Order: sequence, then structure tokens, then C-alpha cells
Amino acid sequence: MNIPQSSFPRVVIIGGGFGGISLAKKLSHKEFQVVLLDKHNYHTFQPLLYQVSTGGLEPDSIAYPIRKVLQGYPNTYFRLTEVNKIDTNINCVDTSIGSLKFNYLVVATGSTTNFFGNKAIAKNSMAMKSIPQSLNLRSLILENFEQALLTDDLHEREALMNFVIVGGGPTGVELAGALAEIKKGILPKDYPDLDTRRAQINLVQGSDRILPAMSIKASEKAEQFLESLGVNVWKNLRVSDYDGNIAKTNTETIFETATLVWAAGVKAVGIKGLDAKDYLCRGNRLRVNEFNQVGSFEHIFAIGDVAQMESEEYPYGHPMMAQPALQQGHHLGKNLVRITEEKAMVPFTYNDKGSMATVGRNKAVADLPKFKFQGVFAWFIWMFVHLYFLIGFRNRVVVFINWVYNYIKFDREARLIIRPFKKKYQVNS
Amino acid sequence: MNIPQSSFPRVVIIGGGFGGISLAKKLSHKEFQVVLLDKHNYHTFQPLLYQVSTGGLEPDSIAYPIRKVLQGYPNTYFRLTEVNKIDTNINCVDTSIGSLKFNYLVVATGSTTNFFGNKAIAKNSMAMKSIPQSLNLRSLILENFEQALLTDDLHEREALMNFVIVGGGPTGVELAGALAEIKKGILPKDYPDLDTRRAQINLVQGSDRILPAMSIKASEKAEQFLESLGVNVWKNLRVSDYDGNIAKTNTETIFETATLVWAAGVKAVGIKGLDAKDYLCRGNRLRVNEFNQVGSFEHIFAIGDVAQMESEEYPYGHPMMAQPALQQGHHLGKNLVRITEEKAMVPFTYNDKGSMATVGRNKAVADLPKFKFQGVFAWFIWMFVHLYFLIGFRNRVVVFINWVYNYIKFDREARLIIRPFKKKYQVNS
Repeated sequence: MNIPQSSFPRVVIIGGGFGGISLAKKLSHKEFQVVLLDKHNYHTFQPLLYQVSTGGLEPDSIAYPIRKVLQGYPNTYFRLTEVNKIDTNINCVDTSIGSLKFNYLVVATGSTTNFFGNKAIAKNSMAMKSIPQSLNLRSLILENFEQALLTDDLHEREALMNFVIVGGGPTGVELAGALAEIKKGILPKDYPDLDTRRAQINLVQGSDRILPAMSIKASEKAEQFLESLGVNVWKNLRVSDYDGNIAKTNTETIFETATLVWAAGVKAVGIKGLDAKDYLCRGNRLRVNEFNQVGSFEHIFAIGDVAQMESEEYPYGHPMMAQPALQQGHHLGKNLVRITEEKAMVPFTYNDKGSMATVGRNKAVADLPKFKFQGVFAWFIWMFVHLYFLIGFRNRVVVFINWVYNYIKFDREARLIIRPFKKKYQVNS
Repeated sequence: MNIPQSSFPRVVIIGGGFGGISLAKKLSHKEFQVVLLDKHNYHTFQPLLYQVSTGGLEPDSIAYPIRKVLQGYPNTYFRLTEVNKIDTNINCVDTSIGSLKFNYLVVATGSTTNFFGNKAIAKNSMAMKSIPQSLNLRSLILENFEQALLTDDLHEREALMNFVIVGGGPTGVELAGALAEIKKGILPKDYPDLDTRRAQINLVQGSDRILPAMSIKASEKAEQFLESLGVNVWKNLRVSDYDGNIAKTNTETIFETATLVWAAGVKAVGIKGLDAKDYLCRGNRLRVNEFNQVGSFEHIFAIGDVAQMESEEYPYGHPMMAQPALQQGHHLGKNLVRITEEKAMVPFTYNDKGSMATVGRNKAVADLPKFKFQGVFAWFIWMFVHLYFLIGFRNRVVVFINWVYNYIKFDREARLIIRPFKKKYQVNS
């Protein structure tokens, strides 16, 4: 892997998400050699992926080159690779570009879509956890409308304009709201020769309220917002099968749809060699102690979505979102420095800054520790917070301008169908 | 294809480039039914593709949804499709989504890369005539540097950092300049553990000067600019073969390179059924008369790159660039209206507004009809003109902000490797 020897201990971080990046930043200019591994050369700001899927933002403005983050950090190395497995006996990471010994290992691999073993749904539905997936969904949505124009079969046309989003968490709610705004603001202008009123947006939630991790007031208000936008909200309904055309549920309800987005669950991205029963939890998470140490290892840590730090308040670990990852990365950085200074590590405590979800223009819900509010003000706070946490000044400016433009014009211009391209030039491509 | 019958004559336009779009605009609100066909759902601003390849701009800001251009035009239809052939006996276009009769046909298919029959080069080199191709080149350039880090074989490492651009026209010159700026401004910061001074940028031109379509002064100055940026300019050299590793030339010079960009020629995109000997010219162009009529057809027209309108001043037709396409599209729109008004058509005359090429920051060359100048002023004019011709207010603002940012920070942030994605979700993607 061509990482030079160093007199400092080597910290290998797997994953350049919120956790991995915040740790790498914290360790810069400290007495460590830091090696960050990721399968993408960019950090993805996942909370805004749904805006890429719906043409509101360009992918380049919510992603950021990892090398750019690490510019000017001495003793910090980035390698673009996939990790195959960990050998905890010899403290070695095995990757697609060779193996690497570590003194400290930090697993920050994040999470991926959880289909709960349903292969048909995994094969036929769309997920939205990465930039390529989001671009893929954007293309499919646009292609479906192009195709709907061409058919005289009313059944088929409605299936092409019927969107089923499974999962009433923030991702599902935000995507449903954005699609509803596209239906209202863009489709009638883009497709004057298609009766786009027949387009349906269905949000399917297994439990009795959407946004179940938020307050009841937030759930109720979000549902009202969605209904005012024309989204059909289905509660206590679970999609059990999907063959690409028909989605079956646990009741007699079925959906004929060409587009099923699966946002009903996530699971941690596990790594071979770090999967002993005593610390592997449900959904692939790794049980860590209050110092983020995995199992009984003193030098192997997990942070963010992949870490399950159980406590009285969080019996199943912290929520799998940006804040715990950011805070754990930051905190672990301090603890690693303490180790080298031969000081005792400090237990992690989570500072819950609350949670938010946006449904549409002027419509958001926010549960902050001291206030719960909904509507225009929540929507402004939501935008401000997302701009604040976005990495890169240029990204912030470009996202801000797009939002202002989209707000004034009721528009989303990034609606290009950009589909697979081969590694080398293809004649006629 | 589900295009309704209309009492107005139907104009089918093949291609949503500069020519097709300017014609469709001109015919809006006129007594025609307009059907625009394109294989992409967006218009591509080709002059800035090299900035996508080099991470300076996002693809979404130089492309524009065709449906958005046509919003609010009555009797105008867009269909996303590829044209198979034309049947001139029954006035019918055969496409991948069905066939369509026309009263008037306008071929505005533009041009594609010309490998002059060399299959090895076509297979192993990169072209840069579309958004997917440009994203592909961007990814390849970045992947090569990631790979260069990993090898201890100095030969291989240098081949990975060696760029050969074949063709000294505006595309080749602009790409070479942009790569040289990346080498200087970004690589040393992104790859501190790689000796990026060894990266080489070679521009290979078959004739005795680069930018041969411009003035001698422009050629000389562009060459000086390139050399000041560290680009190796090779003249009177032709690349004859490339196997993915070694590029051979007509002399004993060879290049060991992992990246060969072919910008040495274009040819018109021909259509089956419109290929009779009496009007098919070299490079697939269709010979048209001064009214853009193809061969002896009165109702079939060609505009832009695909049209060869021969005159004393332009014995081989107009240059294959945006201006003739824009002007011919606009002019043909007026002539079609004149036909319905039973007036005689007006011959097309080309208003040569000059040509420009940019090499790098503060470095451009411009040949305007009355002035020829080089340097900072030409660079400002170049930027202004490109912003002016870009479609869409949001695109202009986003491009402008990116340029200001890139200028101040000596940076280009859109350097994400985004590679093929499948139509449906892939587990572990």
C-alpha cells in the first residue's frame, strides 16, 4: 500500500464519513500516523442525498474530495480501496490494494440499506445511501415519465407515475415531500401532454406514526404537511414483496408501481474478522464500551453508525445519524491523544442536539432539546443547520444559491438523466 | 410515439444541440407542430466539457433539461429516443420508440469523435464529446493518480501520470492547459506522498501549428502560454496506434501513457436513409444548399455540424462549432415560416463572430473579426461570452461562482470519482 514507516503509532481509519473525517481532523498535527481508507474518493453528505435524487442539487455540491479535507495534514494518508478483512491476531487490515499493519484501528464504515433478507425487494427496489444510487434514482424517475408518455395502456402509465416510498423516517418523509413538490411545480410544465395529476406518491410506514424517533407533535405535523402536498400516507402497513411491478403488503393492499424506494431500514456495514458473537449486535453493529472500544480489544474502536454504545438512555446504542458519529470521532481523537500521554481515557457522553426533518418549502419539523416547533421557522433552521454542517465553502455557496433559486422559481433544474458509462470509450456512446 | 394529430404541418427536429434548440425556439408560437428528438434529455454546452473533465465545473451546470427549454411552447413535443433511420419515400422517421411522419425534417445531429477508422485508438483512448464521456475522463485521471501511489515500478508510475492529448484544436489546447494547472495547483497538495513533478502533459498536433483554424499570432501565443504552464507541445507529430499503454507515432517518438485523450477530429453523426452519394460529403456531413436543404429535397434540412453548406469563402462548409449551428437554426426557423406564408426563402449568410480558446488563468487567445488579442483581456472576454451563451440563469450563476472560487483559490473541487451504476440497486454498491 506504499505507506511509509513512521516513528509514530499508526491509526488506520476505515471510512471517510462523518465519524472518520472528524477523527482524522482531530488527529492532524498530533503524534500519529493516520491512514484513512474509503471506497470512494469523496465524503458524502448523506442528509441531502434525497435532494440529488429529486434534482434539487448537483451531486458535486454535497460531496467533498477526501484528499481536499486532508490537505496540509502531515503524516496523514488517504487510500482509495475496499477492505476485505481484519486480522486481529497480527493487527493487520487486508484490502483490495494490499495489507497494512496498525497500532490502532478505527472502524467507521457507517451503514447501508437493510432489506431484512428480502432478496426480491433488494433486487427490484431503489436505495438511496450513496451518490451513485441517488443519481440512479433521479434517472429512473425521469425515465419513467418519458416512458409514461409513450404508452396507451392506462394501467401501465399509472404504474410508471406511481411512487412508493417504504419507510417513514426522515429519508422517506423528505423524499416523499420533494416528489410531491415536483409533481405540483414541475411535471405539469414539463409534460403538458401527460395527465400528471394521476401521478401518486405513497409513503408506507410500518408503525402507527411517521418519524417515530421524533415527538408525537412532529409526527402529526409532518403527516399534515405531507397530506397538504398530496402524499398518500399509509400507516401500519408493511411492504412484503416487490417484483418490479407489483408491491405486496401485509394486508390486501397492493401497489402497482415501477418505482419502489426502500428507506425502511439500515444496518451497519460489517467487516470480516470483526464479527465475534460477544460484540456483534443486531443489524451488524459492533458493541463498544464508553471509550468506543470493540469487545475486549484495547486498540480497536468503532464509531458512528457501526458502533453500538449501550447505556441506560440508549439501550440499543445512539441513533444512526450524523451527530453521534461526529461527536464520537471528535471524542475518540482526544482519547487517542490521552493514551499516548499515558492519561486515562474519558467516557463518551452524547450531546443530543435534537433532530429535524423537512417536508417541503416552509414546512419542516424540529425537535430541539428545549423547543419543539414546526413550520416556516423550523424550515429555516433546517436549512441553516445543513449549510453549517456541509463541508467546504464553495459547496455551501452553491447549495445556498440553488435553494434560493429553487425557492423563488418553484424549480429544480438538475434533472438530467445520466446513466452508466464504461471505463473506456464506447463507440456510439 | 403518441404525438397527437395537428392541423399545422409537423416539423421533426433530430437533435437538441445548439442548432435544434435555436430552431425550436424560433418556431414556438408559430403555426407548426414541432417534435424534437434527442437521445439525452438535456442540452449539453459542449465548449465547457473540458472543465467537467478537469473538475472545474459540475456536469449539471453546463447541461440544461430540454423540457425546461421548451416549457410553455404550445404544439411542441419532446421525445427521448434514438433515431434508427429515415424513410424519405414516405416521409417517416423510424426510432427506438416507434415511427413518426413528418412534413418537414431537420437533421441537427451534430458531430462525434472521428478516429479515422483506427479501432485500437477508438477502443483504448478517451473521447470528450458528451457529459458521460467527460465524467469518465475525470474519473480516469483521478484513478490514475490513486494508482500511481501504489506502484513501486517507476515506469508504471510515470505512465499513470503521463497524459497525451492528441489534437491541437481548441478542445485539446483547453484540456492541456487545465491539466497543467491541476498539476501545478492541486496535485502537490492532494498527493504529498507522490512526486507529481513527474506528471507530464503532452499535446500532440499533426500540423505545424496548434489552433490551425485561428490566426498565426493566436497559435504562437497559445503555444507560449502552454509552454509557460509546462505542457510539452509536439507539432508535426501524428499518433498512429495506442494499445492502452504505448502510443506510437509516425516518427520514432513513443509515449508510455495510461491516458490518451483523442481530440484530433470530429465527424458528423449520420443517419441511415439520408446517405445518398450526391449529398454525402467527407466526414458524414450532408451537403446543403443556401437554404439548408439536403440534396434535392425541398422539405428535408440539415443544420449545424452535420450540414455542409459550401461557398466561395467556405469551400468545405462552415466550421463545426456553436455559432454556425445557432445561426442556421435561427435562420431556418424564419425560412420555414416564410414557406407557410408562401414567400421565397432567404439564403443563409454566416456572421463570423470570431473564435477564441483559453489556455489557463489570465491566458486566452481571441480572433475577433476586427481585433486579434491575447492574454488577460481575451480571457475575460472568453468567460463573458461563455456565460452569455450558457442556457439558464441558475447555470450562469453557478458557473460564475465556481470560476470566481477556482480563480481565487487556485482550486477545482468537483473531483469526485463517480463510476457506472446499474439500472436497479446492487447489493454492496
